[in-house]
Amino acid sequence: MISIDTFHLTPSTPGTLQSRIQQMVAQGILSGRFRAGERLPSSRALALHLGVSRITVTLAYTELVADDYLSARGRSGYYVSANAPEPPDFPARASGPGTVNWLELLPKSPSLGITKPADWASYRYNFIYGQSDPTLFDSANWRLCALQALGKRDFDSLTADQYDGDDPLLIDYITRQTLPRRGILAAPDEVLLTMGAQNALWLTAQLLTPNRNTVIEDPGYPALRALLSQTHTILTPLALDQDGLDPATIPPGTDVVFTTPSHQCPTTTTMPHARRQALLDRAEADNMLIVEDDYEFEMSFLRPAAPALKSMDKTGRVIYIGSFSKSIFPGLRLGYLVGPAPFIAAARALRASILRHPPGHIQRTTAYFLSLGHYDALIRRMSRAYHERRRVLDSAIAAHGLQVAGTGTYGGSSLWMRAPGVNTYELAARLRGVGVLIEPGAPFFAGSGGVTTEFYRLAYSSIPAGRIAEGVGLVGG
Amino acid sequence: MISIDTFHLTPSTPGTLQSRIQQMVAQGILSGRFRAGERLPSSRALALHLGVSRITVTLAYTELVADDYLSARGRSGYYVSANAPEPPDFPARASGPGTVNWLELLPKSPSLGITKPADWASYRYNFIYGQSDPTLFDSANWRLCALQALGKRDFDSLTADQYDGDDPLLIDYITRQTLPRRGILAAPDEVLLTMGAQNALWLTAQLLTPNRNTVIEDPGYPALRALLSQTHTILTPLALDQDGLDPATIPPGTDVVFTTPSHQCPTTTTMPHARRQALLDRAEADNMLIVEDDYEFEMSFLRPAAPALKSMDKTGRVIYIGSFSKSIFPGLRLGYLVGPAPFIAAARALRASILRHPPGHIQRTTAYFLSLGHYDALIRRMSRAYHERRRVLDSAIAAHGLQVAGTGTYGGSSLWMRAPGVNTYELAARLRGVGVLIEPGAPFFAGSGGVTTEFYRLAYSSIPAGRIAEGVGLVGG
Repeated sequence: MISIDTFHLTPSTPGTLQSRIQQMVAQGILSGRFRAGERLPSSRALALHLGVSRITVTLAYTELVADDYLSARGRSGYYVSANAPEPPDFPARASGPGTVNWLELLPKSPSLGITKPADWASYRYNFIYGQSDPTLFDSANWRLCALQALGKRDFDSLTADQYDGDDPLLIDYITRQTLPRRGILAAPDEVLLTMGAQNALWLTAQLLTPNRNTVIEDPGYPALRALLSQTHTILTPLALDQDGLDPATIPPGTDVVFTTPSHQCPTTTTMPHARRQALLDRAEADNMLIVEDDYEFEMSFLRPAAPALKSMDKTGRVIYIGSFSKSIFPGLRLGYLVGPAPFIAAARALRASILRHPPGHIQRTTAYFLSLGHYDALIRRMSRAYHERRRVLDSAIAAHGLQVAGTGTYGGSSLWMRAPGVNTYELAARLRGVGVLIEPGAPFFAGSGGVTTEFYRLAYSSIPAGRIAEGVGLVGG
Repeated sequence: MISIDTFHLTPSTPGTLQSRIQQMVAQGILSGRFRAGERLPSSRALALHLGVSRITVTLAYTELVADDYLSARGRSGYYVSANAPEPPDFPARASGPGTVNWLELLPKSPSLGITKPADWASYRYNFIYGQSDPTLFDSANWRLCALQALGKRDFDSLTADQYDGDDPLLIDYITRQTLPRRGILAAPDEVLLTMGAQNALWLTAQLLTPNRNTVIEDPGYPALRALLSQTHTILTPLALDQDGLDPATIPPGTDVVFTTPSHQCPTTTTMPHARRQALLDRAEADNMLIVEDDYEFEMSFLRPAAPALKSMDKTGRVIYIGSFSKSIFPGLRLGYLVGPAPFIAAARALRASILRHPPGHIQRTTAYFLSLGHYDALIRRMSRAYHERRRVLDSAIAAHGLQVAGTGTYGGSSLWMRAPGVNTYELAARLRGVGVLIEPGAPFFAGSGGVTTEFYRLAYSSIPAGRIAEGVGLVGG
């Protein structure tokens, strides 16, 4: 049944009432809004709705039946005919005199810096990074927590406009349980929830980088480079060594350094303790700020994760970013910023201005999932599975003589690989033909030097252990 | 039980292993992380975790018991003592030499332009605007839709990183069912989901207003004025007449006009058809763009809502904003932008850069709630209740001789009121003392002239009909 509320007689349309009704219905069909087999409102109801006489609508319907737009089925009414004209692929766009030239008018669009085939899940040997694995995720308990968060007692946390506020239950868990595991002590006003790490990076970049000198890691996270290209910052990508970012190579005059010390993206390197201290010392001496993206610290199955860089920060110059995208799922869009209270207050005001707050239901469900212990159990299950996959992957790589360019010494969910002399865009395209999905490494490079097309990423967050060896065989074959 | 993962020995801390463990536990207590009665990990487990001998941990625990930080309970282990020192209200902040002066460093924060008492729900005569009413919302069916969206079949829509994409089910419903009710025909690539109308306004302002001449309504939506104060636009607030924004008063050289033609915020005026056409003609003649905020069009219980301004747009110069905040609930954070495909593509890229996409679960739940007909039923129930509340409110206002400064001729959820010679900030403060919550009108004014403190808003979206007369009596008394 087509809703009667979708029928309007535009006051300015020329023609008799009857012909305008015919046009209205025909346009609904031609535009694809009304589909074959759908029932029209009765002539009585439509006449009442439009404020016209019933006979006018009946005559219009009769004409439309004659033109095979509609078919009449006895007393049950009028339906869009199976023979009605097919709609075009999309409705007509504005064009002709007076039409706005939008392409001329709009600023250059930012890029996410990430491209993945939409059908990634259908690959048999799926070495894709950063999506959730249905065989590991605890859907049953997530569902129970979501239901609890939908209950009467939580009506306000679900429905209310919180303006710039966060769910106190979730903030309490993060400050008391999550951050201490990273060695970080923070008060509630030093934490802000964000729409994933992307949103945390964006807010931080907006507040800290415009018209300042910013250093990023090269290779590094493409989405960070892409968003920094929009903030009018002077960007310096720094080439890494085997221990990640070398503080000695940071140019004088740098204001902000973005880094991934726990698990460098994409090389998976962990920055040693002495270098972290050197980075902080350098930052203090030259009054730099540091933004620490601590994504994926949860996946520490080879050895306990080292405390975050933020835990060593005595002068309030480290902004810390955490995310539930890798440990729960990326479609949740939930992450957090930790920093000195004045910075968090500014980030909170900016977040409120662009979106107010993450949906209440998402926050409360996550708070329950964390505080009831399901999150810890999930991390343990994921760690066990990743550990096994990593073991299989390591041996398959050794067996096929593939070259590892970066190894997460504490765990993670991917390896950074190098294929000397090979263009990995071509390699990835060829492998796709045999059901293998790998990620070419070039998009991670900002261009501070080196052959970038030889690298690729092999992730084991979505591929079952049993398929890894065969998949690696195809990569090496 | 305090999680063992929250224990770390910082490599650089001086002292013996035993004293460092004692310090670590004492700090956990002093900082408020470990609370009285919570159980410590066993000495065996902690020794294993820290890689130290068990006797070292046992000696540290024994010392902590002697100092009354911990208490030992026979074989069941060690607990934070009930006599342990109380934590301070918040952990110590960075201070002293080298500490960053954040207040000096950060840009000026945007304001949401909105202030409401946090305890608004506790007022007996609650004339607050824009929150959800638990007596009207269909929690049961919302819960069922949420459960369905959490099912196995929807795992991907729940969990996957969609990068810049939207839920096709929700887009399909909006293009085929919602927009046609506003007389708008749009293809899927002409619609973008946003984190509420706030996010839609922000994205639009970012793309269209920097370094251009922008006109807003005065009075108007404070959150719009606040976010435009951040985009480096040249802002002209235009005083309204009884029909809303008068196109003849728009200054030459204007590039963008933000307007609320269906239901002017806050006066609730509906712009007549002839004036809408004049506005579009003016926009076309002077090549202006129009941003139409069509919030609350669903609440049309007095007469059918007129089609949106966007429905009359032949030259692709109207950007349309819709929202589910008033019709479902504001904590959902879901709205949408409609405009020409190139504009939507740019807004999509910008959205992806700041947050990627609204959480998948929120989108899919809403898609089910809409397509299963629960939304239409909810709107009907809300309309009936609002209609009744409005009737009671209108008679109470007449009975107490209060002055209405703007009336929604088709419905809405609030009235715009004037109290000549009264400062409504003082009035609101006085009324709060007797359990009445009204909203002073001054924040809606940008200052294009007139006495602004005489106005106030009376909303009937959260107050039961039975309390309205008494509440209005207190306002007028």
